[in-house]
Amino acid sequence: MQAEIITIGDEILIGQIVDTNSAFIAQQLNKIGVSVYQITSVQDDKQHILKSLREAEENADIIILTGGLGPTKDDITKKTIAAYFQDTLIQNKAVLKNIETLWEKYIKQPLSQVNIDQALIPSKATALMNKVGSAPGMWLEKGDKTFISLPGVPFEMKALIEQEVVPKLQKKYKFPFILHKTLLTYGIGESNLAAKIETWEDQLPKHIKLAYLPNLGKVRLRLSAKGNNKAEIIQEVDQQIKLLLPQIEDYFTGFEDQEETIEAAIAKKLTLKKQTLATAESCTGGKIAEQITAIPGASSYFKGSVVSYTEEIKKEILKVPKALIAKHTVVSAEVAEAMAASVLQLFSTDYAIATTGNAGPTKDNTTEELGTVFIAIATKNNVYSQKFTLGQPRIKVINKAVNKAFEMLNKEILKNR
Amino acid sequence: MQAEIITIGDEILIGQIVDTNSAFIAQQLNKIGVSVYQITSVQDDKQHILKSLREAEENADIIILTGGLGPTKDDITKKTIAAYFQDTLIQNKAVLKNIETLWEKYIKQPLSQVNIDQALIPSKATALMNKVGSAPGMWLEKGDKTFISLPGVPFEMKALIEQEVVPKLQKKYKFPFILHKTLLTYGIGESNLAAKIETWEDQLPKHIKLAYLPNLGKVRLRLSAKGNNKAEIIQEVDQQIKLLLPQIEDYFTGFEDQEETIEAAIAKKLTLKKQTLATAESCTGGKIAEQITAIPGASSYFKGSVVSYTEEIKKEILKVPKALIAKHTVVSAEVAEAMAASVLQLFSTDYAIATTGNAGPTKDNTTEELGTVFIAIATKNNVYSQKFTLGQPRIKVINKAVNKAFEMLNKEILKNR
Repeated sequence: MQAEIITIGDEILIGQIVDTNSAFIAQQLNKIGVSVYQITSVQDDKQHILKSLREAEENADIIILTGGLGPTKDDITKKTIAAYFQDTLIQNKAVLKNIETLWEKYIKQPLSQVNIDQALIPSKATALMNKVGSAPGMWLEKGDKTFISLPGVPFEMKALIEQEVVPKLQKKYKFPFILHKTLLTYGIGESNLAAKIETWEDQLPKHIKLAYLPNLGKVRLRLSAKGNNKAEIIQEVDQQIKLLLPQIEDYFTGFEDQEETIEAAIAKKLTLKKQTLATAESCTGGKIAEQITAIPGASSYFKGSVVSYTEEIKKEILKVPKALIAKHTVVSAEVAEAMAASVLQLFSTDYAIATTGNAGPTKDNTTEELGTVFIAIATKNNVYSQKFTLGQPRIKVINKAVNKAFEMLNKEILKNR
Repeated sequence: MQAEIITIGDEILIGQIVDTNSAFIAQQLNKIGVSVYQITSVQDDKQHILKSLREAEENADIIILTGGLGPTKDDITKKTIAAYFQDTLIQNKAVLKNIETLWEKYIKQPLSQVNIDQALIPSKATALMNKVGSAPGMWLEKGDKTFISLPGVPFEMKALIEQEVVPKLQKKYKFPFILHKTLLTYGIGESNLAAKIETWEDQLPKHIKLAYLPNLGKVRLRLSAKGNNKAEIIQEVDQQIKLLLPQIEDYFTGFEDQEETIEAAIAKKLTLKKQTLATAESCTGGKIAEQITAIPGASSYFKGSVVSYTEEIKKEILKVPKALIAKHTVVSAEVAEAMAASVLQLFSTDYAIATTGNAGPTKDNTTEELGTVFIAIATKNNVYSQKFTLGQPRIKVINKAVNKAFEMLNKEILKNR
């Protein structure tokens, strides 16, 4: 059972937006046992969409389209689907009612003709009710194959996938079980890691697939397996992991749950222990705080941050002694540690992270090599730091520093179990 | 002249990563006059890659592949390309030299066989030297068609596109000129906007394409045109914009440069005027600071931020009076304004932004509706705020609030010209 995702829109093909919808849909499909064969992004062009529908129908059992369902003239998905199914568009009463309700609640203006026309769908389609927008999802069948068309606005698409598409797919088909398990390693390159575990890799059974995903200082190892016997698959993969772990113990830091980022793992632990965190960020510019607060409930463990982007703020708000900066420069272990200790005290928290570095592209007044970052962790009993040389460009330095900061904090929290 | 982008990797098809490479490549190609016909993401599977190469060769003149060039067993792109070109892999001396240099500088370990094998490329290929990683890019020709294979690691791919691929393409082909101009509008829905400009839209010449891009409180209008006479295209599009502007003047806020986000525009203005900025962020959790500091040179105008994620920090660090919070609750115009005024003073800046709101999913101790955000702007002479009702989910509230904050700040800076 395979799916193909087709994302429609010139904005994708000119690079004006990054297509994030496909990744979300692929994740949700994998969770229920549907593999994605291919993701195809096509233009707002009738012939191109028709061609991609024909090809997808050959490749896959489930075809999910997103985009091109808006009320304006450049939105042609609905008409094109009607043409593909040799069908006509008719008004769907339930969809119209839904649009009227949304308009009463949020827009508070009378419906225009284009708004009313949003309720037109192919006569062969079942409407999937969009509770957060005016474009309905559509579900069409052709033999055993299912075609699903969804709006391209991410939160509308997400709500429809979760509330409508997944339950309906599970009702219609019987899917196998897919398992992905990803191990996180830090501190070893991809090729050295591959050399280290070669014997183990060579004995892996054919139906368990291994992938290496290197990124910004970490290499993720993903094991994937698929089959009808869920218990057996879980057991087999677990057994392989048991064989693998002793060989990578110096580098292994944990499992990556697709839902669970390292900041989510930290969030869980801090919430459970009723402990709190603050950050003092220089080169990471608030990105650590931002990733922490992206998770609902952050206010129960995260008190806040001082983003000290100038020397003056480090001195005045964080009370880093002038003499210390003069002696070591702002990009130093000493200043990172002083920042961490200061924000811990200022915000009265159990943990604090501080970052200082030169992300580039210029070195400004620092003596350290471009891309050097010092990260400090402070607790009530201790403060320490680590130096990282993260190269260039700027964006890589910032992202790597954020990863490293979370990694250091996670280790510190684990120590205090 | 059309291109197709093929991104290779199971991690894309299971939704483990979002494919950001395609958008970057598409942007760079558009800039030099190459349209992208299709973006296709395929599995690490020889037959699937071969099939996508055959199809791309039919659709496009330039085929760019990314991914699958690593040193491990799941990386099969190189072998597959050799098979497609009925070619064999041979060691490229210059590539090997490059790998040796990188290893001496960064890895400081002897080369292993897998590292050496990174220098194997198809005999018919020209190597594109990767100065930041061990996997070389490859350039192959078949008649008039060009096939380019690049590593999937984003910063390696980017460096190769900019330094090797774009110059070589411009040398080989003569491209037309492509122009995209995007107008930003705020405060009007897609369908109302479409109704308002219908007459203008209907008179647009066929070769100028209009697209509506609605997202989080703004609608972008994109005009696209393509042709050999650059001056003529620019003039035609400008003329159409002149006709359009009077009809949308209540909503139009500026042009979107693909390079220039609103925070980049703010950065330019503040740098030029030697003025400074600080933020006090509650519900946005540091995201405003993070987006500002993502831009090189931020330290010349951005002093920093206080992320005050709890009531306690609002009182203690930002000195928001206890009585004010008690009277109005933390999610109020009064508290937003007090935060902005306080951080302006604390950091001695010319401008300050503050945000406070309930991003959800729960309302906590506030009385305002879920998704309510107050954003305040402070200057030396003035402080004021605006209330926004941004709905749900959390991530949408945060992102919309960040957009609105930049919009308010930009307007304030423009006022003070």
